[in-house]
Amino acid sequence: MSRFASAKSETDKQNTDSQISDTLIYNLNIIDCGPQCGKSAVAFTNGVISWIGNSDDRQQSSVRAKDEIDAEGQWLSPGLIDCHTHLVYGGHRAAEFALKLEGASYEEISRKGGGIVSTVKATRNLSESALVACSQPRLQSLLAEGVTTVEIKSGYGLDLNNEIKMLRVARQLGKDTPVTIRTSFLGAHALPPEFKDKDEFIQHLIDIVMPQVQKEGLADAVDFFCEGIGFSRSQCEKICKEAVKLGLPIKGHVEQLSNLNGATLIAEYNGLSADHLEHLHKDDIPTLKTAGVVAVLLPGAFYSLSETKLPPIQAMRDHQLPMAIASDLNPGSSPIASLLNIMNLACVQYKLTPEEVLRGVTCHAARALGLEKSIGEIKVGMNADALLWPIDTPAQLCYGMNLVKPSRIYKNGIQVNV
Amino acid sequence: MSRFASAKSETDKQNTDSQISDTLIYNLNIIDCGPQCGKSAVAFTNGVISWIGNSDDRQQSSVRAKDEIDAEGQWLSPGLIDCHTHLVYGGHRAAEFALKLEGASYEEISRKGGGIVSTVKATRNLSESALVACSQPRLQSLLAEGVTTVEIKSGYGLDLNNEIKMLRVARQLGKDTPVTIRTSFLGAHALPPEFKDKDEFIQHLIDIVMPQVQKEGLADAVDFFCEGIGFSRSQCEKICKEAVKLGLPIKGHVEQLSNLNGATLIAEYNGLSADHLEHLHKDDIPTLKTAGVVAVLLPGAFYSLSETKLPPIQAMRDHQLPMAIASDLNPGSSPIASLLNIMNLACVQYKLTPEEVLRGVTCHAARALGLEKSIGEIKVGMNADALLWPIDTPAQLCYGMNLVKPSRIYKNGIQVNV
Repeated sequence: MSRFASAKSETDKQNTDSQISDTLIYNLNIIDCGPQCGKSAVAFTNGVISWIGNSDDRQQSSVRAKDEIDAEGQWLSPGLIDCHTHLVYGGHRAAEFALKLEGASYEEISRKGGGIVSTVKATRNLSESALVACSQPRLQSLLAEGVTTVEIKSGYGLDLNNEIKMLRVARQLGKDTPVTIRTSFLGAHALPPEFKDKDEFIQHLIDIVMPQVQKEGLADAVDFFCEGIGFSRSQCEKICKEAVKLGLPIKGHVEQLSNLNGATLIAEYNGLSADHLEHLHKDDIPTLKTAGVVAVLLPGAFYSLSETKLPPIQAMRDHQLPMAIASDLNPGSSPIASLLNIMNLACVQYKLTPEEVLRGVTCHAARALGLEKSIGEIKVGMNADALLWPIDTPAQLCYGMNLVKPSRIYKNGIQVNV
Repeated sequence: MSRFASAKSETDKQNTDSQISDTLIYNLNIIDCGPQCGKSAVAFTNGVISWIGNSDDRQQSSVRAKDEIDAEGQWLSPGLIDCHTHLVYGGHRAAEFALKLEGASYEEISRKGGGIVSTVKATRNLSESALVACSQPRLQSLLAEGVTTVEIKSGYGLDLNNEIKMLRVARQLGKDTPVTIRTSFLGAHALPPEFKDKDEFIQHLIDIVMPQVQKEGLADAVDFFCEGIGFSRSQCEKICKEAVKLGLPIKGHVEQLSNLNGATLIAEYNGLSADHLEHLHKDDIPTLKTAGVVAVLLPGAFYSLSETKLPPIQAMRDHQLPMAIASDLNPGSSPIASLLNIMNLACVQYKLTPEEVLRGVTCHAARALGLEKSIGEIKVGMNADALLWPIDTPAQLCYGMNLVKPSRIYKNGIQVNV
């Protein structure tokens, strides 16, 4: 049974006569994880989707609302979810980008202060409020496209105070903006300049940084970068063990540039998601599937780094592994503050279908954040995070760049002005 | 000598004491085709750049203006120029995009009415005012990024009335919007369904359509698609001969998917530009250079079609062939209504440097339209089409997607509200 049909079957349970809804939108089509239907209507009450039905049935069902909107055949989708970003950072890496294109060697760029260390330096140099101020426009850009939930990682602080600062900034952005922010602690992102030994740094994260982050309630998950230029599988496993101890779910950057068996580590710890996956072995896909791990695909980094090794998409499809799509917004390898552009990249470069991509930025992305019970679908009882699109087919959301934007954005049932 | 320096040397000729300028912007950096300079200032008078100098010299030089703006170190660039678009069209091709990704064959897509013919049908079906209405948002998207001049082609009408309609729509857009529109007649774009023979269609264009287009003053140039799926070199040459007769300059879609020697045809007719050029032979580059033909590169189509054959960029560079960059905005092969995104694609996929790309969307793009005397540079006497950018290095305009937009847009010296 389609998810939409299952939502409809719940109408009996819907409380439609005892109260007036806040918002009723009728004459619309619904983009959902299930098949499309015709002339639909939805109602929002107290921030939640309270009724879904046929436009023509709304009077008969006694659905009334303070704000009744004729959508004139527009399409309704769940609010988009960007489940992997590094949105909080200082500075930019445009000079490094230019140097590379002018033919500078890796050494020259390093000598001129390029690479991730330059972002760590720029991020450390900013006060909490300055970091909020420079990150806010990026969040606004995502929100203007209809992104109502964003995951934000730390990982450019790399010491106690600066990791804490980054996570506080992320929390502050969530308070200042009608976007749900989920944070991931990514201390194991890169070796900071003050450490020479990766094992020592990992131990420092475990002994000092992670307990404090947890004590302040700043992280919703723990992340790591399992890669030659990041950390080894056994170093990442130490982080996983500490996360379990602290009761935090796990996600990780794995098999991006090589295969260190990071995906199976995430499966062993029943993590939320395994992210990147260009170099994933097909044989590991059933393991991820069984462990309930979501594959988070990041075509923005693939594109910006001019990679050629594609993730094993067809095998993931064959195993019905849920695939989420995210922007990976960061100043180095994915300087793209647009989930809609990323959705197009996912089609053009990864050959995902628009339907797969739409699931990837709604229900599967919700699951990658452990939020599948409240967001990512148009379903009675879920948060009224929803978008109206002036389109005539859902594929229009993926097929180009800068051609569509939502005509209305609802966050928890309240219309957002962007 | 740099272009900026040459502009500065003209300050003696500038009339600075007899009148008050409309606008003076100081404390800025200037992005131009020449090297950068420090703390600059510009004045606009009657829609033209009337003075360029040092911020600190403005009082000494008696430069006064009604509107004096402290740019606080922002960067000024010429208005961006998108010199190759098919911005006027009806419908979209999202369903076809989805079908392809779902594995449909070319025949299936054709059977379901896909391909260029579907856009011809959708465009013919719209009235002039409906076509203005659906094209206007795309032009607004470009303008919001700082695009102040746009070339628009016909080519989805393919009969007398509909080609005329498309060109009128393009002219109307130029009247309704503070953007200079340059039109190109692209009758030789595809064979319309009512013709079976390409030669007959070309003769029809020459006998009936082109004279009428010229009589109504609707075309600023004549374009053609020289390709297996378009028209042969000799068919395109017939179009060129008629264009010469009508006194219209020539440009062409050449060597996109194969090499039919279309570029040398354009050189023979001293055309404005040769566009696409993925399959250009290196040996033809000196011919283009000598004939004063601009190479217009269209990385949006390369990207959307997942092409792998790159144009011979290094050889063009070696011969100092001017390279313009354009969006190729169209519903099939480049559904990208963002010249800034295209600039990033030009860096990432074509490995052009940010400096080359900035020239590609300013001075070289102006030349591809025959407008190099009035737009494309920040220079005394040129149109005051100019943008203020809140950036600290020009490479920021190219390095990512959706990260920057102009803080002020001036068209003919008047600030545009977008």
